[in-house]
Amino acid sequence: MIKTRFIEEIIKDNKEGNEQVHGWIIGKRKSKNYIFLDIKDSTGVIQVVLNKKKNVHEDIDYIKNLKLNSAVSVTGLYNNSRNQPEIIASFYKIEKEATLNLQPNPSNPLLNPFNENFIKHLTKHPTFYISNRKLATVLKIKSRFRHNLASWFWSNKYVQMEPPEFTNQTLYDDNGAFWINLNGQKISLSRCATFHLEPGIIAYEKVFCITETHANEMSRSKRHLAEFTHLKAELAWANLEDLMSIAGKMLYETVRQTVSDCQKEIEILGLGKIIEDKINRLNPKNYKIISYDDAIELIKKKGKSFDYGKSLSNKDEEILTLAHNNSLLWIKFIPCTAEGFPFKRKNDAPHLTMVSDLIAPGGFGEILGIAEKITDYDELLSRMKEKRKDTPEQLERYKDYLDLRKCGLPEHGGIGMGIERVVRFLLDLKHVRYTRPFPVIHKTKINF
Amino acid sequence: MIKTRFIEEIIKDNKEGNEQVHGWIIGKRKSKNYIFLDIKDSTGVIQVVLNKKKNVHEDIDYIKNLKLNSAVSVTGLYNNSRNQPEIIASFYKIEKEATLNLQPNPSNPLLNPFNENFIKHLTKHPTFYISNRKLATVLKIKSRFRHNLASWFWSNKYVQMEPPEFTNQTLYDDNGAFWINLNGQKISLSRCATFHLEPGIIAYEKVFCITETHANEMSRSKRHLAEFTHLKAELAWANLEDLMSIAGKMLYETVRQTVSDCQKEIEILGLGKIIEDKINRLNPKNYKIISYDDAIELIKKKGKSFDYGKSLSNKDEEILTLAHNNSLLWIKFIPCTAEGFPFKRKNDAPHLTMVSDLIAPGGFGEILGIAEKITDYDELLSRMKEKRKDTPEQLERYKDYLDLRKCGLPEHGGIGMGIERVVRFLLDLKHVRYTRPFPVIHKTKINF
Repeated sequence: MIKTRFIEEIIKDNKEGNEQVHGWIIGKRKSKNYIFLDIKDSTGVIQVVLNKKKNVHEDIDYIKNLKLNSAVSVTGLYNNSRNQPEIIASFYKIEKEATLNLQPNPSNPLLNPFNENFIKHLTKHPTFYISNRKLATVLKIKSRFRHNLASWFWSNKYVQMEPPEFTNQTLYDDNGAFWINLNGQKISLSRCATFHLEPGIIAYEKVFCITETHANEMSRSKRHLAEFTHLKAELAWANLEDLMSIAGKMLYETVRQTVSDCQKEIEILGLGKIIEDKINRLNPKNYKIISYDDAIELIKKKGKSFDYGKSLSNKDEEILTLAHNNSLLWIKFIPCTAEGFPFKRKNDAPHLTMVSDLIAPGGFGEILGIAEKITDYDELLSRMKEKRKDTPEQLERYKDYLDLRKCGLPEHGGIGMGIERVVRFLLDLKHVRYTRPFPVIHKTKINF
Repeated sequence: MIKTRFIEEIIKDNKEGNEQVHGWIIGKRKSKNYIFLDIKDSTGVIQVVLNKKKNVHEDIDYIKNLKLNSAVSVTGLYNNSRNQPEIIASFYKIEKEATLNLQPNPSNPLLNPFNENFIKHLTKHPTFYISNRKLATVLKIKSRFRHNLASWFWSNKYVQMEPPEFTNQTLYDDNGAFWINLNGQKISLSRCATFHLEPGIIAYEKVFCITETHANEMSRSKRHLAEFTHLKAELAWANLEDLMSIAGKMLYETVRQTVSDCQKEIEILGLGKIIEDKINRLNPKNYKIISYDDAIELIKKKGKSFDYGKSLSNKDEEILTLAHNNSLLWIKFIPCTAEGFPFKRKNDAPHLTMVSDLIAPGGFGEILGIAEKITDYDELLSRMKEKRKDTPEQLERYKDYLDLRKCGLPEHGGIGMGIERVVRFLLDLKHVRYTRPFPVIHKTKINF
């Protein structure tokens, strides 16, 4: 029979009477007459008391020596008479004995999975360590956020698109992508859904997608993974200002919904105060806006050199947010030298793009970017030339994307967000790796 | 300014007064004094009337010659005096002129995108054809179903896992997977999330995921794609009977929710009666159950030969469902020769597995499968030997998955469902290709 009763409910109901618990032993203590087991399930922990002298526990010595993490089921009388919820076992069954000594033990309540010393265990053996309570809690908040994002877009009448992962269209350099062989055709794993969302706006006007995205970049920074969860949205009839306003609203509302859904999880992580501060910063009315040109001037004023036209480094971003009272900071009009070819240019300064990035303070850096897209065929073609994407082979790859500009594609733009980065910022995590159960990290062997 | 008013609302509100429409021209007619445009947006179609004689339309000849699919915005007075909702234009703007003559025209209301003659256009140029109203409607229903599935699992207290797409664990033969190069390590694209969901049940007890999955199989049947949307769920403390009951409930409730959410879409497709019949068949109380052994006997009785131990063919499945009044049919206890190594064996018949497949009638075939998984280390190892997965290299790949059997992994099992196949059955589609905007089909060149 499927399990229908969970520890959290038993403790919440707090009624004397028979209960059954299925779970895992995560702690053991003994006295002269009793054995005390801490049993966890996915909802909580409860103490189970075994009376050594009662006949029901003939194999009491076996239980005493059971390894932590063994799975058991226990039937018995619930009581809370000593202000300690417990079940006095009348029957128990070893459902699955643990025989492996994991070091460190994932269910040890004192284990800090975010400690640097722990990383090698997590990276090598995520299979065993994602059951650690704190890590499992972070992963749950992350995936709840993912779901809330989808719900937000559906409620706001966007349609979820399913862009292909197999595509010819790499956006950036070919060596920044992963390649597979499909019946002799060399195909890349999608790095950016824009090529497959834009056609969707003629059908739906407002579209979004949430996909696993793969970047074959050598970066091993704290905010880069080879495999990450990418939110993309694309809207017809929208310009940069519209997109900035929508993106801020979307981010704020979905984060607040997630925090509201995950009160228990935030308590487990002990993050109440930090989350309050982050939510406040994520409120769009507290964002600051600066142009890339002004940003560079500010960086130079602070005594740091900077090559105009490059992307901001992590350090640059930190300087800028620090100078803005650690607010979230929009940096707009990024030079075209630092951006992909599909982005629209600024009318009065064609070396700049209609792109704006949202930077989180405290070194967390870029979490979201928005861009107006080019709608004119000739303009797009000339941008492709500048980016050396005008070989016959490249023009063939982007042929339909180009031709879409001849099919009534109106003014439009998109939002791109790294879901791991937002969760890293919200939960104040040292590395995005903690936001995926099986993180794929460059130059790190995959054991799963 | 972002568009906030949509054609569906204008028609629904049905109030005389000024309105603005952003959309695409999908039809044109003219009389002596007027030009009539059919303007569509993502919500509907409305007639716009241009008065040839009024000064506001100086470039009326230009409008007259505009190609279909051109994007325009129109301001004017709404009225419905002739029982024909229309806007008498006082101002219009060509937002983006279409210059390409698409043949066939995707916005032609008479175009049947599910016609065999049309497939080559769709396969070659999905970029232009996913805006076809019927096709866009199918894709929207599919992605709504995807979202409703996630919502169902969250409401039933499952946690959404994010299994890696990059993995060593291929489940079946290596040449059935796609491979990428990750810093010199040869890594496959995941074909089955089970290896990464099972560790999750120790943390969450009930988990699910919805992922794009890639199969490098040569099959070009009507229900195979190289890239498809895969629902997987895994539950602790569950056996085959539990899983059959949960899977049926999940399928029925999510399909009903989707049909309820997509009333308008089903009307566009003209599928009312068909959907009613499908929903009735999808009700678990109407499912039939048969064992594989009995199924083979039945097939032979119907005069068809069959090699015991093989998977059922499409034809076999059709014979079986026909013999069961075209009900959905569970076929349980599939022989181990036709299944992967992680599946538990039947206690009293170890050549059979604790696997059950749900077959849809009418040739639609398998849409869902469930399986109990092996929890014992030695048993799993011996199943791997039988499947020749016991080379040192293979044992290394599955080491942690094996060792998880030493870490208190209790009785558990999983559900796997091909979302495209369910949608194909529900909407009575000839091919699963219609359920993805950019279908990846074997031996078919990718143009996107």
